[in-house]
Amino acid sequence: MPAGDLRCAEWSSDAEWEAWVWTQIKAEARGDAESEPALASYLYSTILSHSSLERSLSFHLGNKLCSSTLLSTLLYDLFLNTFSSDPSLRAAAVADLCAAHERDPACVSFSHCLLNYKGFLACQAHRVAHKLWIQNRRPLALALHSRIADVFAVDIHPAARIGKGVLFDHATGVVVGETAVIGNNVSILHHVTLGGTGKAGGDRHPKIGDGVLIGASATILGNVKIGEGAKIGAGSVVLIDVPPRTTAVGNPARLVGGKERPSKHEDVPGQSMDHTSFMSEWSDYII
Amino acid sequence: MPAGDLRCAEWSSDAEWEAWVWTQIKAEARGDAESEPALASYLYSTILSHSSLERSLSFHLGNKLCSSTLLSTLLYDLFLNTFSSDPSLRAAAVADLCAAHERDPACVSFSHCLLNYKGFLACQAHRVAHKLWIQNRRPLALALHSRIADVFAVDIHPAARIGKGVLFDHATGVVVGETAVIGNNVSILHHVTLGGTGKAGGDRHPKIGDGVLIGASATILGNVKIGEGAKIGAGSVVLIDVPPRTTAVGNPARLVGGKERPSKHEDVPGQSMDHTSFMSEWSDYII
Amino acid sequence: MPAGDLRCAEWSSDAEWEAWVWTQIKAEARGDAESEPALASYLYSTILSHSSLERSLSFHLGNKLCSSTLLSTLLYDLFLNTFSSDPSLRAAAVADLCAAHERDPACVSFSHCLLNYKGFLACQAHRVAHKLWIQNRRPLALALHSRIADVFAVDIHPAARIGKGVLFDHATGVVVGETAVIGNNVSILHHVTLGGTGKAGGDRHPKIGDGVLIGASATILGNVKIGEGAKIGAGSVVLIDVPPRTTAVGNPARLVGGKERPSKHEDVPGQSMDHTSFMSEWSDYII
Amino acid sequence: MPAGDLRCAEWSSDAEWEAWVWTQIKAEARGDAESEPALASYLYSTILSHSSLERSLSFHLGNKLCSSTLLSTLLYDLFLNTFSSDPSLRAAAVADLCAAHERDPACVSFSHCLLNYKGFLACQAHRVAHKLWIQNRRPLALALHSRIADVFAVDIHPAARIGKGVLFDHATGVVVGETAVIGNNVSILHHVTLGGTGKAGGDRHPKIGDGVLIGASATILGNVKIGEGAKIGAGSVVLIDVPPRTTAVGNPARLVGGKERPSKHEDVPGQSMDHTSFMSEWSDYII
Amino acid sequence: MPAGDLRCAEWSSDAEWEAWVWTQIKAEARGDAESEPALASYLYSTILSHSSLERSLSFHLGNKLCSSTLLSTLLYDLFLNTFSSDPSLRAAAVADLCAAHERDPACVSFSHCLLNYKGFLACQAHRVAHKLWIQNRRPLALALHSRIADVFAVDIHPAARIGKGVLFDHATGVVVGETAVIGNNVSILHHVTLGGTGKAGGDRHPKIGDGVLIGASATILGNVKIGEGAKIGAGSVVLIDVPPRTTAVGNPARLVGGKERPSKHEDVPGQSMDHTSFMSEWSDYII
Amino acid sequence: MPAGDLRCAEWSSDAEWEAWVWTQIKAEARGDAESEPALASYLYSTILSHSSLERSLSFHLGNKLCSSTLLSTLLYDLFLNTFSSDPSLRAAAVADLCAAHERDPACVSFSHCLLNYKGFLACQAHRVAHKLWIQNRRPLALALHSRIADVFAVDIHPAARIGKGVLFDHATGVVVGETAVIGNNVSILHHVTLGGTGKAGGDRHPKIGDGVLIGASATILGNVKIGEGAKIGAGSVVLIDVPPRTTAVGNPARLVGGKERPSKHEDVPGQSMDHTSFMSEWSDYII
Repeated sequence: MPAGDLRCAEWSSDAEWEAWVWTQIKAEARGDAESEPALASYLYSTILSHSSLERSLSFHLGNKLCSSTLLSTLLYDLFLNTFSSDPSLRAAAVADLCAAHERDPACVSFSHCLLNYKGFLACQAHRVAHKLWIQNRRPLALALHSRIADVFAVDIHPAARIGKGVLFDHATGVVVGETAVIGNNVSILHHVTLGGTGKAGGDRHPKIGDGVLIGASATILGNVKIGEGAKIGAGSVVLIDVPPRTTAVGNPARLVGGKERPSKHEDVPGQSMDHTSFMSEWSDYII
Repeated sequence: MPAGDLRCAEWSSDAEWEAWVWTQIKAEARGDAESEPALASYLYSTILSHSSLERSLSFHLGNKLCSSTLLSTLLYDLFLNTFSSDPSLRAAAVADLCAAHERDPACVSFSHCLLNYKGFLACQAHRVAHKLWIQNRRPLALALHSRIADVFAVDIHPAARIGKGVLFDHATGVVVGETAVIGNNVSILHHVTLGGTGKAGGDRHPKIGDGVLIGASATILGNVKIGEGAKIGAGSVVLIDVPPRTTAVGNPARLVGGKERPSKHEDVPGQSMDHTSFMSEWSDYII
Repeated sequence: MPAGDLRCAEWSSDAEWEAWVWTQIKAEARGDAESEPALASYLYSTILSHSSLERSLSFHLGNKLCSSTLLSTLLYDLFLNTFSSDPSLRAAAVADLCAAHERDPACVSFSHCLLNYKGFLACQAHRVAHKLWIQNRRPLALALHSRIADVFAVDIHPAARIGKGVLFDHATGVVVGETAVIGNNVSILHHVTLGGTGKAGGDRHPKIGDGVLIGASATILGNVKIGEGAKIGAGSVVLIDVPPRTTAVGNPARLVGGKERPSKHEDVPGQSMDHTSFMSEWSDYII
Repeated sequence: MPAGDLRCAEWSSDAEWEAWVWTQIKAEARGDAESEPALASYLYSTILSHSSLERSLSFHLGNKLCSSTLLSTLLYDLFLNTFSSDPSLRAAAVADLCAAHERDPACVSFSHCLLNYKGFLACQAHRVAHKLWIQNRRPLALALHSRIADVFAVDIHPAARIGKGVLFDHATGVVVGETAVIGNNVSILHHVTLGGTGKAGGDRHPKIGDGVLIGASATILGNVKIGEGAKIGAGSVVLIDVPPRTTAVGNPARLVGGKERPSKHEDVPGQSMDHTSFMSEWSDYII
Repeated sequence: MPAGDLRCAEWSSDAEWEAWVWTQIKAEARGDAESEPALASYLYSTILSHSSLERSLSFHLGNKLCSSTLLSTLLYDLFLNTFSSDPSLRAAAVADLCAAHERDPACVSFSHCLLNYKGFLACQAHRVAHKLWIQNRRPLALALHSRIADVFAVDIHPAARIGKGVLFDHATGVVVGETAVIGNNVSILHHVTLGGTGKAGGDRHPKIGDGVLIGASATILGNVKIGEGAKIGAGSVVLIDVPPRTTAVGNPARLVGGKERPSKHEDVPGQSMDHTSFMSEWSDYII
Repeated sequence: MPAGDLRCAEWSSDAEWEAWVWTQIKAEARGDAESEPALASYLYSTILSHSSLERSLSFHLGNKLCSSTLLSTLLYDLFLNTFSSDPSLRAAAVADLCAAHERDPACVSFSHCLLNYKGFLACQAHRVAHKLWIQNRRPLALALHSRIADVFAVDIHPAARIGKGVLFDHATGVVVGETAVIGNNVSILHHVTLGGTGKAGGDRHPKIGDGVLIGASATILGNVKIGEGAKIGAGSVVLIDVPPRTTAVGNPARLVGGKERPSKHEDVPGQSMDHTSFMSEWSDYII
């Protein structure tokens, strides 16, 4: 979809934006149900029978995350109550839907992301777990965390703070620790670790600035700061601070252009999603 | 099992080969059911009650991939209709079973692979999703893709093209992008990424030649060409073309023997599965 | 929890230790059930309705690992019979619970680990599969292996031998091959591979000594020996023996301090869980 | 429970009455959960985790009546929305709970009725189906009707009108036709039919007055009027109007005391539940 | 629906009739799905996603009758294979749908009967069980019989022979014994027993002629013959042959008009469904 | 099966008898599994994988009676513990299996009864509920009672006392009240009510002597005594004591031969199962 058609960021209020996205999702699902009767039942139960995005999302998450000992009705109720009472969670979900739509060329529609993106679904469920955590309902938050980790293979500690417009692309194997913070408009590929430094408690996980792009299988360890608009190359092992708009690659990761005068880029890589151009240069350089 | 006993490749037709493999599977399952009554129910429901490999496989996939909103009967029907109407899918499944049997020393029997190998099961389900994709039934293909990614933690875009005789060993965490192509007789270990270059659409994922071996946790990004019979070392990050019968290792990956005159090997690594001898040499060399 | 309060290692017998841990778990669950009614049903069904740790664990694993073709009652029976008849499995489970509690600052309680840690649960289920394997009930062991790999994305071959007091932290994506051996008091992060050398059978997987720490996404291949108390850095690709109390890092991994005279550390990293200090030094050194 | 303790009828408002009953139910469930840990999980999920009777009832009915094609989350939502928006349905449920408690000596507690009485549960689900029917949502009402008939073997057409304080005792096999009307404080035993006259549509089913008692296996056919406070003997086949406070018995049913001057009784049999004294007299008389 | 619109009996072939009914069902379901989004998922999964009546019916029965030990996929396969290979079963199902539609004023549509009538569904499942029985697949026939009896509370021995155009109205509690025979165009109300004479085997159950009407809770015992077009009053206990077009009522049942010269009626009561006019006369007469 | 082959009553101990019956059941199931692969999975899971009748029965009942809020593992555990610890429950189950086999000509094998007879299964589950009741675990007993009533449409109060060798034939709709007592070798058809006298508590339900036969749809009300070896005709409504070896029929029921000098029969009708000869005589007599 051309960005001009989408215009995710131009709404006068979050509620208006949410209504617009929900309208798109319903229209997409209606079209798909007509063209594919085998999927119509699924589309009606997950989307078309619901009166709002929050109900659809609560239903879908409740059915995805339930188990024989944590029933879908209980989870549905929990999700619906939380999404209904906190508009910021709904606004974040809408921003995440738009992030996937804009940045991932394989994302063919909003409804595709809502239904099928395990990164999107894990992130929305995490937002609810995080809310429970800060309300001091920790055992419930951790039980939800466990279900997300089992079902999606995405392991985000409920205490971790995550901004809006975040894309977890593919998402399998992502691990985000307790004191990690992720800014707005960040894009994180699969198998990425934002890990701790060991046995001691306290503030021990990475802080990811706005607009950062973290490539597949990158491992960032410790209370390091990845500055706004930085890029982390796929497969990198990062143990150092990375200044804003610079690039770190390799195992162990070094700054492209050198520690003293790293190269700076102009784009916001979390949004431009340029995974490889810088890496190829670096690769050429080294070899 | 000695290769001489197996002779997977010597049948006069795919149908004859399929019949022979199915006979083996039934015999194995019958033996296991007799020696282990606790498993007999499982073996009868998944294998011994069925009249053909396609029915057994459709039943097993339908039960593995179903959810509360995508019922097993719907999926069973979809798998059975697709496998029944397209002999090439069945031939590919048979070739994949033989690939696992020949190449993986931990694969004790065909039935073990059929029942328990998440890589094998994910790949067969992908073949059906791919068929739906090229029939322009994309929403259904993507729904199936999503179930495979949730259940097996294997994320293969339904548009990706995969040859025959492919082994996804262990398979957890494998990610294969939309425009990726994988040849015949390829072996791919777990956590392997065949990823894209970013936000732009178009042809942006790797092309893997016949007989390639890709080690665990290797990340290959962009529309690069991994030539026939090449090897990619475990943990490598590959951003360059790799010529036929050469080896790439490291992060970023370099060709063993050097960019100009890389060493060439004789064997077909996707079949010989030599993961480490070349890497040890390389490792010795570097240190 | 301060180590002084816990004193996991000071009991006069395994049975006494088990009883004490079970008492703690019940008390924790009772407190959580009182403060969080929405979770009380879950806590009663998984913990508070049971008369022993082995019953609770068997119930929880049976419900987690069951499928439409492997019923929870069958698995519950299998787990309960195995845990009841072999005290060493129960002692290992208790040691693993204490390992998580002592080493992982995010582990808030024993019950949190028992209910929610996929690494803990996968390991206990593996211990049962391993017991079946050595009793020559291989098809059942492999079926259980397959369920663990599907549900937890943790793939431990049932023949692999694992000691006590082992922590699989986060655990998603761990792969442990058929002839691998893991000692006591080892800590292994997520995405770690203890892989083989290829197509040939025989003894082909790593041997991990007591007290070893293996960082996230490390790949160790072949029948190499990781000596007692060694550390393997995150993201490393290890193809060599690593002497006791030394550190290997990088891709390919080299010994810190050099091949000839590697630096030796004093602590037991599998217990101290110091993931990063040594890596930072090394990282500084290289760049 | 002595009537003096219960005083179901003495509340100043329906809401106050409902609150009192809900308090009783929670207290009963709490006591049972403490004395029977094996049932505690069930009691928490069905009663103790809920903040109101309508949530508890909606949860319980949703889980009882769901099927693989009508999900519990959908039904829970439907029940909760209906009970929340219509206080008269909640008042009727409370009156029915009290009816069971007062009239059935086997009813040991309100929570026992709420959880276990299929007649009570079928009747509350019918009230929702009836509401849907009069809102002209007939296909949904009939789908619910079908689930009630399958799960409880109680077949009440969604168009049938039922008063408050009604006891369906045992309930299996009850059939109530489309144009039937049941008054307040009626007691109906199992296998009772309020049936039609055949193929023609229109008003064709019995009208049951307030306070009527209908014995087990009684069959009442056609648009006949069973007057206020009448009794219908077990096994009777009734094709005639039965005047208020008279008794009909036999096959075909006749009025005790004769058609012209039937005997009149003083009590309200729907509440006094005297099943047999009159029948014994009649039986003696006939033989 | 006026009989003139329906004209169930006027098709030139069973296949044409089946096609017409299936078209009606799809149209009804489409209309209901549009007017009631909450039910659309159910209607798509059970009807609108299917390409034929036999697939829809097989899917619906498979999901209704499955259990944790008899999976829906197995039953779906069994039903679909049987209905596909035997057109007479499909023709009988169509005739039964028309019978309900014509005779039951509460039957608002064909789809209502297909989805919701437990008598219709039990009868179609019985037809499959009967086919298995005569193919000498008795254990499977009896397992299916057991599921029908559990799920629908309708207990028809798989050996019993049942004609076409049969209406089991309400159906709960119907019991039909092993050697019973039911003709065409028969209507049977709920709680009807066609029972045996005791311990001895052999031909020991009733034979019901074409066009018979059997009222609610009637009990017919032994190898008696209920002649063509006879009526059996509700609640009757019949131990005698009943001549064609006569009426038996009472406990024990007697012929209306007397044993020697019973009254004969003109209509076909199994189709006219006149339950009560004759009974009222008789009732008046006796009292 | 000829009685001579069966000889159910000739074993020197209950344990020996149980072992013999279990051997028969396994042999039957093995034969059925061989001849019907579609059923083999079911037969292995329910019978052939188990080491004893009590485990098979506990497994089968646990899976039949479980719900989303009462898990199969909990029920399995409860049944297995109860059957294991009380040999008299196992002896009663064996006697009931033999009763069905000897008296019901439609009972083709012991395994058929064990798997498929809802009367048999409801009765065994009731025996466990009764044991819980007398252990004062009443809420659990009532929860089990409720599941039996939902699943089998058989409603036996957990306080009711039931002897051995009892056959509930067809069983749907049976209702047995709190203070009812049923002797040994009794046969009870479907829709039979042993009901109370109304609102007052205390001893208010029928007492059924040894060897009694109660026909279909008979209703027996109040604390009346049905003497040893008596017969109750189908459809009777019984409000009086019935002397030993006499017959009561009709609505209201009268003694055959008259109140003063009722006819006495020689056989034990609960075992001879002569449902109808006496009724025919009586019927002839009346008409």
